[in-house]
Amino acid sequence: MRISELSAEAGVPVATIKYYLREKLLPEGLRTSPTQAAYGAVHVQRLRVIRALVESGVSIAETRKVIAALNAPPSSPYELLAVAHAAVAPEVEEGIDTSAALDLFVRLGGNLERYDATQLAVLARALRTVERSGFSLPPEVLDAYVVAARQIAEAETAGIPTESRDSVVRYVVLGTVMAEPVILALRRMAEQVVAAEHFGGRAESA
Amino acid sequence: MRISELSAEAGVPVATIKYYLREKLLPEGLRTSPTQAAYGAVHVQRLRVIRALVESGVSIAETRKVIAALNAPPSSPYELLAVAHAAVAPEVEEGIDTSAALDLFVRLGGNLERYDATQLAVLARALRTVERSGFSLPPEVLDAYVVAARQIAEAETAGIPTESRDSVVRYVVLGTVMAEPVILALRRMAEQVVAAEHFGGRAESA
Repeated sequence: MRISELSAEAGVPVATIKYYLREKLLPEGLRTSPTQAAYGAVHVQRLRVIRALVESGVSIAETRKVIAALNAPPSSPYELLAVAHAAVAPEVEEGIDTSAALDLFVRLGGNLERYDATQLAVLARALRTVERSGFSLPPEVLDAYVVAARQIAEAETAGIPTESRDSVVRYVVLGTVMAEPVILALRRMAEQVVAAEHFGGRAESA
Repeated sequence: MRISELSAEAGVPVATIKYYLREKLLPEGLRTSPTQAAYGAVHVQRLRVIRALVESGVSIAETRKVIAALNAPPSSPYELLAVAHAAVAPEVEEGIDTSAALDLFVRLGGNLERYDATQLAVLARALRTVERSGFSLPPEVLDAYVVAARQIAEAETAGIPTESRDSVVRYVVLGTVMAEPVILALRRMAEQVVAAEHFGGRAESA
Protein backbone atom coordinates (compact mmCIF):
# COMPACT_ATOMS: atom_id res chain seq x y z
CA MET A 1 0.00 0.00 0.00
CA ARG A 2 1.03 3.63 -0.43
CA ILE A 3 1.93 5.91 2.47
CA SER A 4 -1.52 7.56 2.26
CA GLU A 5 -3.17 4.16 2.58
CA LEU A 6 -0.85 3.20 5.43
CA SER A 7 -1.86 6.44 7.14
CA ALA A 8 -5.55 5.62 6.80
CA GLU A 9 -5.06 2.00 7.88
CA ALA A 10 -3.03 2.78 11.01
CA GLY A 11 -4.76 6.04 11.87
CA VAL A 12 -1.49 7.97 11.90
CA PRO A 13 -0.97 11.18 9.85
CA VAL A 14 1.36 10.98 6.83
CA ALA A 15 3.64 13.67 8.32
CA THR A 16 4.03 11.60 11.48
CA ILE A 17 4.84 8.48 9.46
CA LYS A 18 7.52 10.42 7.59
CA TYR A 19 8.93 11.59 10.92
CA TYR A 20 9.11 8.01 12.20
CA LEU A 21 10.81 6.96 8.94
CA ARG A 22 13.43 9.71 9.35
CA GLU A 23 13.93 8.71 13.00
CA LYS A 24 14.41 5.08 11.87
CA LEU A 25 11.58 3.90 14.10
CA LEU A 26 9.78 2.51 11.10
CA PRO A 27 11.55 0.45 8.43
CA GLU A 28 11.64 1.92 4.91
CA GLY A 29 8.99 0.69 2.50
CA LEU A 30 9.84 -1.16 -0.68
CA ARG A 31 10.87 1.44 -3.30
CA THR A 32 8.59 1.26 -6.32
CA SER A 33 9.82 4.50 -7.91
CA PRO A 34 12.19 7.30 -6.91
CA THR A 35 9.32 9.05 -5.08
CA GLN A 36 7.13 6.14 -4.02
CA ALA A 37 7.40 3.17 -1.68
CA ALA A 38 5.09 0.29 -0.81
CA TYR A 39 4.18 -0.52 2.79
CA GLY A 40 2.75 -3.69 4.27
CA ALA A 41 1.12 -5.25 7.32
CA VAL A 42 4.42 -5.10 9.22
CA HIS A 43 4.34 -1.30 8.93
CA VAL A 44 0.79 -1.10 10.23
CA GLN A 45 1.66 -3.26 13.22
CA ARG A 46 4.86 -1.38 13.94
CA LEU A 47 3.05 1.97 13.76
CA ARG A 48 0.56 0.76 16.35
CA VAL A 49 3.39 -0.22 18.68
CA ILE A 50 5.17 3.11 18.21
CA ARG A 51 1.99 5.08 18.87
CA ALA A 52 1.28 3.03 21.97
CA LEU A 53 4.76 3.63 23.37
CA VAL A 54 4.75 7.34 22.59
CA GLU A 55 1.23 7.71 24.05
CA SER A 56 2.48 5.99 27.20
CA GLY A 57 4.99 8.79 27.58
CA VAL A 58 8.01 6.84 26.32
CA SER A 59 10.45 9.20 24.56
CA ILE A 60 11.46 8.81 20.91
CA ALA A 61 14.96 7.74 22.01
CA GLU A 62 13.57 5.08 24.34
CA THR A 63 11.06 3.96 21.72
CA ARG A 64 13.95 3.46 19.30
CA LYS A 65 15.64 1.13 21.81
CA VAL A 66 12.46 -0.85 22.41
CA ILE A 67 11.96 -1.17 18.65
CA ALA A 68 15.56 -2.36 18.35
CA ALA A 69 14.78 -5.04 20.94
CA LEU A 70 11.72 -6.06 18.92
CA ASN A 71 13.88 -6.30 15.79
CA ALA A 72 16.74 -8.27 17.28
CA PRO A 73 15.51 -10.21 20.28
CA PRO A 74 18.13 -11.81 22.54
CA SER A 75 17.97 -15.50 23.26
CA SER A 76 15.89 -16.02 26.40
CA PRO A 77 12.89 -14.24 27.91
CA TYR A 78 15.16 -13.35 30.84
CA GLU A 79 17.62 -11.52 28.60
CA LEU A 80 14.85 -9.96 26.57
CA LEU A 81 13.36 -8.59 29.76
CA ALA A 82 16.72 -7.09 30.73
CA VAL A 83 16.92 -5.38 27.30
CA ALA A 84 13.38 -4.07 27.57
CA HIS A 85 14.01 -2.79 31.07
CA ALA A 86 17.31 -1.18 30.09
CA ALA A 87 15.60 0.55 27.16
CA VAL A 88 13.03 2.21 29.36
CA ALA A 89 15.18 2.70 32.46
CA PRO A 90 15.79 6.30 33.50
CA GLU A 91 19.44 7.35 33.66
CA VAL A 92 20.86 6.95 37.14
CA GLU A 93 24.07 8.63 38.24
CA GLU A 94 26.93 6.32 39.22
CA GLY A 95 27.91 5.56 42.78
CA ILE A 96 24.44 5.51 44.30
CA ASP A 97 24.14 3.49 47.53
CA THR A 98 22.31 0.29 46.56
CA SER A 99 22.32 -1.50 49.92
CA ALA A 100 18.61 -0.93 50.67
CA ALA A 101 17.71 -1.88 47.09
CA LEU A 102 19.82 -5.03 47.33
CA ASP A 103 17.98 -5.98 50.50
CA LEU A 104 14.65 -5.68 48.66
CA PHE A 105 16.06 -7.70 45.75
CA VAL A 106 16.84 -10.53 48.18
CA ARG A 107 13.37 -10.25 49.73
CA LEU A 108 11.91 -10.61 46.22
CA GLY A 109 13.75 -13.94 46.02
CA GLY A 110 16.64 -12.63 43.94
CA ASN A 111 19.89 -14.53 43.53
CA LEU A 112 22.85 -12.35 44.50
CA GLU A 113 24.97 -13.94 41.78
CA ARG A 114 22.63 -12.69 39.10
CA TYR A 115 21.32 -9.19 39.40
CA ASP A 116 20.82 -6.30 37.01
CA ALA A 117 22.94 -3.39 38.23
CA THR A 118 20.85 -0.86 36.27
CA GLN A 119 17.57 -1.93 37.84
CA LEU A 120 19.18 -1.99 41.26
CA ALA A 121 20.30 1.60 40.76
CA VAL A 122 16.82 2.62 39.56
CA LEU A 123 15.25 1.16 42.70
CA ALA A 124 17.96 2.72 44.88
CA ARG A 125 17.24 6.13 43.42
CA ALA A 126 13.49 5.76 43.90
CA LEU A 127 14.11 4.88 47.57
CA ARG A 128 16.53 7.78 48.01
CA THR A 129 14.05 10.25 46.50
CA VAL A 130 11.42 9.13 49.01
CA GLU A 131 13.90 9.46 51.87
CA ARG A 132 15.07 12.92 50.80
CA SER A 133 11.51 14.20 50.76
CA GLY A 134 11.37 13.60 54.49
CA PHE A 135 8.63 11.04 53.90
CA SER A 136 9.25 7.48 55.00
CA LEU A 137 7.51 4.37 53.80
CA PRO A 138 6.41 2.31 56.82
CA PRO A 139 8.09 -1.14 56.81
CA GLU A 140 4.71 -2.88 56.53
CA VAL A 141 3.88 -0.86 53.43
CA LEU A 142 7.22 -1.69 51.84
CA ASP A 143 6.59 -5.35 52.69
CA ALA A 144 3.24 -5.13 50.91
CA TYR A 145 4.95 -3.67 47.82
CA VAL A 146 7.46 -6.54 47.78
CA VAL A 147 4.75 -9.20 48.07
CA ALA A 148 2.59 -7.49 45.42
CA ALA A 149 5.51 -7.10 43.00
CA ARG A 150 6.37 -10.78 43.32
CA GLN A 151 2.73 -11.86 42.77
CA ILE A 152 2.43 -9.62 39.74
CA ALA A 153 5.65 -10.95 38.25
CA GLU A 154 4.56 -14.55 38.77
CA ALA A 155 1.27 -13.99 36.98
CA GLU A 156 3.03 -12.14 34.17
CA THR A 157 5.67 -14.84 33.76
CA ALA A 158 3.06 -17.60 33.76
CA GLY A 159 1.28 -15.67 31.01
CA ILE A 160 4.24 -15.52 28.63
CA PRO A 161 2.85 -16.91 25.38
CA THR A 162 4.51 -19.92 23.83
CA GLU A 163 3.05 -19.95 20.33
CA SER A 164 5.81 -18.00 18.63
CA ARG A 165 9.03 -16.19 19.31
CA ASP A 166 7.50 -12.96 18.02
CA SER A 167 4.63 -13.20 20.49
CA VAL A 168 7.12 -13.67 23.34
CA VAL A 169 8.98 -10.54 22.28
CA ARG A 170 5.84 -8.45 22.02
CA TYR A 171 4.51 -9.72 25.34
CA VAL A 172 7.69 -9.05 27.26
CA VAL A 173 8.66 -5.73 25.72
CA LEU A 174 5.20 -4.20 25.49
CA GLY A 175 3.95 -5.77 28.72
CA THR A 176 6.78 -4.18 30.64
CA VAL A 177 6.04 -0.69 29.45
CA MET A 178 2.36 -0.64 28.63
CA ALA A 179 1.08 -2.19 31.85
CA GLU A 180 2.73 0.41 34.09
CA PRO A 181 0.01 3.09 33.75
CA VAL A 182 -2.62 0.37 34.31
CA ILE A 183 -0.94 -0.77 37.54
CA LEU A 184 -0.53 2.78 38.84
CA ALA A 185 -4.13 3.71 37.98
CA LEU A 186 -5.39 0.56 39.72
CA ARG A 187 -3.36 1.37 42.81
CA ARG A 188 -4.77 4.89 43.03
CA MET A 189 -8.27 3.61 42.50
CA ALA A 190 -7.77 0.94 45.16
CA GLU A 191 -6.50 3.60 47.56
CA GLN A 192 -9.72 5.54 47.08
CA VAL A 193 -11.85 2.42 47.49
CA VAL A 194 -10.11 1.40 50.71
CA ALA A 195 -9.99 4.97 52.07
CA ALA A 196 -13.72 5.32 51.43
CA GLU A 197 -14.32 2.09 53.36
CA HIS A 198 -12.17 3.20 56.30
CA PHE A 199 -12.91 6.89 56.53
CA GLY A 200 -16.08 7.47 54.58
CA GLY A 201 -16.31 10.39 52.22
CA ARG A 202 -18.63 12.46 50.16
CA ALA A 203 -20.52 10.50 47.53
CA GLU A 204 -19.48 11.52 44.06
CA SER A 205 -21.18 10.69 40.83
CA ALA A 206 -19.69 11.57 37.49
CA MET B 1 17.57 32.69 58.49
CA ARG B 2 18.59 34.47 55.28
CA ILE B 3 18.06 33.00 51.82
CA SER B 4 21.77 32.03 51.65
CA GLU B 5 21.40 30.10 54.92
CA LEU B 6 18.16 28.50 53.71
CA SER B 7 20.05 27.45 50.58
CA ALA B 8 22.80 25.81 52.64
CA GLU B 9 20.34 24.17 55.04
CA ALA B 10 18.09 22.66 52.36
CA GLY B 11 20.82 21.98 49.82
CA VAL B 12 19.01 23.96 47.12
CA PRO B 13 20.75 26.77 45.14
CA VAL B 14 19.64 30.35 45.85
CA ALA B 15 18.60 30.85 42.21
CA THR B 16 16.33 27.79 42.45
CA ILE B 17 14.78 29.05 45.68
CA LYS B 18 14.05 32.39 43.98
CA TYR B 19 12.43 30.52 41.09
CA TYR B 20 10.20 28.58 43.50
CA LEU B 21 9.27 31.86 45.22
CA ARG B 22 8.31 33.42 41.89
CA GLU B 23 6.33 30.30 40.99
CA LYS B 24 4.52 30.54 44.37
CA LEU B 25 5.63 27.05 45.31
CA LEU B 26 7.37 28.40 48.38
CA PRO B 27 5.72 30.97 50.68
CA GLU B 28 7.39 34.37 50.93
CA GLY B 29 9.73 34.87 53.88
CA LEU B 30 9.10 37.50 56.53
CA ARG B 31 10.26 40.87 55.14
CA THR B 32 12.98 42.33 57.34
CA SER B 33 13.99 45.09 54.92
CA PRO B 34 13.05 46.04 51.33
CA THR B 35 15.70 43.63 50.02
CA GLN B 36 15.81 40.98 52.73
CA ALA B 37 13.50 38.34 54.12
CA ALA B 38 13.77 35.79 56.92
CA TYR B 39 13.05 32.10 56.34
CA GLY B 40 12.27 29.36 58.84
CA ALA B 41 11.96 25.61 59.35
CA VAL B 42 8.74 25.54 57.31
CA HIS B 43 10.68 26.75 54.29
CA VAL B 44 13.33 24.05 54.72
CA GLN B 45 10.69 21.35 54.96
CA ARG B 46 8.71 22.70 52.03
CA LEU B 47 11.84 22.91 49.88
CA ARG B 48 12.55 19.23 50.56
CA VAL B 49 9.03 18.31 49.47
CA ILE B 50 9.29 20.39 46.28
CA ARG B 51 12.67 18.86 45.39
CA ALA B 52 11.32 15.39 45.99
CA LEU B 53 8.31 15.96 43.74
CA VAL B 54 10.33 17.60 40.98
CA GLU B 55 12.96 14.84 41.16
CA SER B 56 10.15 12.29 40.84
CA GLY B 57 9.27 13.84 37.51
CA VAL B 58 6.24 15.82 38.71
CA SER B 59 5.90 19.04 36.71
CA ILE B 60 5.99 22.50 38.28
CA ALA B 61 2.27 22.93 37.58
CA GLU B 62 1.43 19.61 39.26
CA THR B 63 3.76 20.37 42.14
CA ARG B 64 1.89 23.63 42.69
CA LYS B 65 -1.38 21.69 43.00
CA VAL B 66 0.12 19.20 45.44
CA ILE B 67 1.53 22.07 47.51
CA ALA B 68 -1.90 23.69 47.50
CA ALA B 69 -3.33 20.44 48.87
CA LEU B 70 -0.66 20.47 51.59
CA ASN B 71 -1.60 24.06 52.46
CA ALA B 72 -5.34 23.61 52.55
CA PRO B 73 -6.17 20.00 53.30
CA PRO B 74 -9.78 18.90 52.86
CA SER B 75 -11.60 17.28 55.72
CA SER B 76 -11.12 13.51 55.47
CA PRO B 77 -8.25 11.29 54.26
CA TYR B 78 -10.61 10.12 51.52
CA GLU B 79 -11.10 13.63 50.16
CA LEU B 80 -7.44 14.45 50.61
CA LEU B 81 -6.58 11.42 48.53
CA ALA B 82 -8.93 12.56 45.79
CA VAL B 83 -7.24 15.98 45.77
CA ALA B 84 -3.76 14.45 45.68
CA HIS B 85 -4.80 12.11 42.87
CA ALA B 86 -6.43 14.90 40.90
CA ALA B 87 -3.29 17.03 41.26
CA VAL B 88 -1.08 14.40 39.70
CA ALA B 89 -3.60 12.91 37.26
CA PRO B 90 -2.76 13.26 33.58
CA GLU B 91 -5.30 15.11 31.49
CA VAL B 92 -7.78 12.76 29.87
CA GLU B 93 -10.01 13.75 26.98
CA GLU B 94 -13.75 13.66 27.61
CA GLY B 95 -16.01 10.91 26.39
CA ILE B 96 -13.67 7.99 26.84
CA ASP B 97 -15.38 4.60 27.25
CA THR B 98 -15.06 3.73 30.94
CA SER B 99 -16.96 0.43 31.00
CA ALA B 100 -13.88 -1.79 31.37
CA ALA B 101 -12.45 0.56 34.01
CA LEU B 102 -15.73 0.53 35.89
CA ASP B 103 -15.66 -3.26 35.90
CA LEU B 104 -12.19 -3.19 37.49
CA PHE B 105 -13.39 -0.60 40.01
CA VAL B 106 -16.12 -3.02 41.09
CA ARG B 107 -13.61 -5.88 41.29
CA LEU B 108 -11.48 -3.69 43.58
CA GLY B 109 -14.48 -3.53 45.89
CA GLY B 110 -15.59 -0.08 44.79
CA ASN B 111 -19.03 1.31 45.53
CA LEU B 112 -20.78 2.44 42.36
CA GLU B 113 -22.40 5.32 44.20
CA ARG B 114 -19.06 6.82 45.05
CA TYR B 115 -16.44 6.87 42.37
CA ASP B 116 -13.92 9.39 41.14
CA ALA B 117 -14.69 10.11 37.48
CA THR B 118 -11.17 11.43 36.84
CA GLN B 119 -9.46 8.29 38.12
CA LEU B 120 -11.88 6.14 36.17
CA ALA B 121 -10.96 8.03 33.00
CA VAL B 122 -7.23 7.68 33.76
CA LEU B 123 -7.61 3.91 34.10
CA ALA B 124 -9.80 3.75 30.99
CA ARG B 125 -7.14 5.53 28.98
CA ALA B 126 -4.37 3.25 30.26
CA LEU B 127 -6.46 0.23 29.22
CA ARG B 128 -7.22 1.75 25.82
CA THR B 129 -3.55 2.49 25.18
CA VAL B 130 -2.70 -1.15 25.85
CA GLU B 131 -5.49 -2.29 23.56
CA ARG B 132 -4.50 0.06 20.74
CA SER B 133 -0.95 -1.26 20.79
CA GLY B 134 -2.27 -4.62 19.71
CA PHE B 135 -1.03 -6.09 23.01
CA SER B 136 -3.55 -7.66 25.33
CA LEU B 137 -3.19 -8.27 29.02
CA PRO B 138 -4.21 -11.86 29.79
CA PRO B 139 -7.21 -11.97 32.18
CA GLU B 140 -5.13 -13.77 34.83
CA VAL B 141 -2.53 -11.01 34.72
CA LEU B 142 -5.17 -8.32 35.07
CA ASP B 143 -6.63 -10.28 38.00
CA ALA B 144 -3.20 -10.29 39.64
CA TYR B 145 -2.97 -6.51 39.20
CA VAL B 146 -6.37 -6.03 40.85
CA VAL B 147 -5.47 -8.24 43.81
CA ALA B 148 -2.06 -6.59 44.20
CA ALA B 149 -3.53 -3.06 44.01
CA ARG B 150 -6.07 -3.88 46.71
CA GLN B 151 -3.39 -5.41 49.00
CA ILE B 152 -1.14 -2.40 48.52
CA ALA B 153 -3.96 0.03 49.27
CA GLU B 154 -4.91 -1.87 52.43
CA ALA B 155 -1.36 -1.76 53.77
CA GLU B 156 -1.08 1.93 52.87
CA THR B 157 -4.38 2.81 54.50
CA ALA B 158 -3.51 0.87 57.67
CA GLY B 159 -0.28 2.88 57.79
CA ILE B 160 -1.92 6.31 57.76
CA PRO B 161 -0.42 8.05 60.78
CA THR B 162 -2.73 9.37 63.45
CA GLU B 163 -0.45 11.64 65.48
CA SER B 164 -1.29 14.85 63.65
CA ARG B 165 -3.29 16.24 60.82
CA ASP B 166 -0.12 17.47 59.15
CA SER B 167 1.38 13.98 59.19
CA VAL B 168 -1.78 12.60 57.55
CA VAL B 169 -1.51 15.18 54.79
CA ARG B 170 2.15 14.49 54.15
CA TYR B 171 1.60 10.72 54.20
CA VAL B 172 -1.31 10.75 51.78
CA VAL B 173 -0.06 13.37 49.34
CA LEU B 174 3.60 12.33 49.25
CA GLY B 175 2.88 8.62 49.58
CA THR B 176 0.68 8.72 46.50
CA VAL B 177 3.31 10.30 44.31
CA MET B 178 6.63 9.27 45.78
CA ALA B 179 5.94 5.55 46.09
CA GLU B 180 5.09 5.10 42.41
CA PRO B 181 8.69 4.82 41.16
CA VAL B 182 9.41 2.40 44.02
CA ILE B 183 6.49 0.17 43.07
CA LEU B 184 7.40 0.20 39.37
CA ALA B 185 11.07 -0.53 40.10
CA LEU B 186 10.10 -3.41 42.39
CA ARG B 187 7.83 -4.87 39.73
CA ARG B 188 10.57 -4.79 37.10
CA MET B 189 13.02 -6.32 39.52
CA ALA B 190 10.53 -9.03 40.46
CA GLU B 191 9.97 -9.76 36.76
CA GLN B 192 13.69 -10.36 36.35
CA VAL B 193 13.86 -12.52 39.48
CA VAL B 194 10.93 -14.68 38.39
CA ALA B 195 12.07 -14.85 34.76
CA ALA B 196 15.52 -15.98 35.93
CA GLU B 197 13.89 -18.73 37.99
CA HIS B 198 11.71 -19.90 35.11
CA PHE B 199 13.96 -19.49 32.12
CA GLY B 200 17.47 -19.14 33.49
CA GLY B 201 19.73 -16.53 32.10
CA ARG B 202 23.28 -15.35 31.93
CA ALA B 203 24.78 -14.57 35.32
CA GLU B 204 25.47 -10.89 35.65
CA SER B 205 27.50 -9.20 38.29
CA ALA B 206 27.59 -5.43 38.55
